[in-house]
Amino acid sequence: MRILGIDPGLQTTGFGVIDVAGHALSYVASGTITTTHIERGDLPARLKVLFDGIAEVKARYAPDAAAVEIVFVNVNPQATLLLGQARGACVTALVSCGLPVAEYTALQMKQAVAGHGQAAKAQVQEMVKRLLKLPGLPGKDAADALGLAITHAHVGAAQDRIAQATQLGRKTTGMYRGGRSY
Amino acid sequence: MRILGIDPGLQTTGFGVIDVAGHALSYVASGTITTTHIERGDLPARLKVLFDGIAEVKARYAPDAAAVEIVFVNVNPQATLLLGQARGACVTALVSCGLPVAEYTALQMKQAVAGHGQAAKAQVQEMVKRLLKLPGLPGKDAADALGLAITHAHVGAAQDRIAQATQLGRKTTGMYRGGRSY
Repeated sequence: MRILGIDPGLQTTGFGVIDVAGHALSYVASGTITTTHIERGDLPARLKVLFDGIAEVKARYAPDAAAVEIVFVNVNPQATLLLGQARGACVTALVSCGLPVAEYTALQMKQAVAGHGQAAKAQVQEMVKRLLKLPGLPGKDAADALGLAITHAHVGAAQDRIAQATQLGRKTTGMYRGGRSY
Repeated sequence: MRILGIDPGLQTTGFGVIDVAGHALSYVASGTITTTHIERGDLPARLKVLFDGIAEVKARYAPDAAAVEIVFVNVNPQATLLLGQARGACVTALVSCGLPVAEYTALQMKQAVAGHGQAAKAQVQEMVKRLLKLPGLPGKDAADALGLAITHAHVGAAQDRIAQATQLGRKTTGMYRGGRSY
């Protein structure tokens, strides 16, 4: 199973793709989609860059599922509104190409990757590097996105164990919703 | 020229389509896209309903341009974040199918339709009915969306006059950005 993690942001959206086979995780790709080359006031054009970028990642790596970070309200309400629109564009890009989308908070991602929810950015980068046996540290946005994909892999594995234990089997294939919802 | 107005909302998104020929405006269609049949916690599914709904309106009525309301921060930050995501999905749906998107505040729309920015919802409905010679009052969400399309028609006409006066001609066809930007 191939999982695409997305860390949404209006200026920079991180993405990370991993393969999961049982307990084994392997790195496929990661990077960022940036909108900094677009005029700041042209929000529709910036959202289109995010949409097109995610569609391209989807087409190139053909993931089976996506995991997106749940964003939180900012002290600046206008920034909250802009981040919300960026996240809306990212989630829309994923669902419009038929990907099941799971949602996780940064806290859940840090717990899954680093063992505790208060992990610093650098710790997340270091743990993602170790878990995926990377030759070097991933960038911060890409590390968060890879961390979300790893979180989804853990939740999927846990749900598999529960399903086997209860002998019910999985009701869905490739689609497990986890994390906090609204 | 055919204009699609969109009044974005997570529960109900209004749409309105009008044709513009010189000063003459004519009604084409209007309605709402609602997500109330989807589980509230499943935000990705709700955003997909908005995306698919707008894509369907675009395919059916083939507008040349779109006008979307600029939303504002709410007293409730969580509501702001959700509205932002809904608007992000709507704008993304429009730009992903190649439509130029202009943005207007509710204030600008009320000024264009009713002559003053403090107009009540009912006044907007009444003025939209008169301007488009409708047999009855449009619904509130559809009236706002039609009002946005009318606002865009006015801005386009004003820009045409300016272009003619300066003998420069229009630099773009079918794409005039107006309204407040971020």
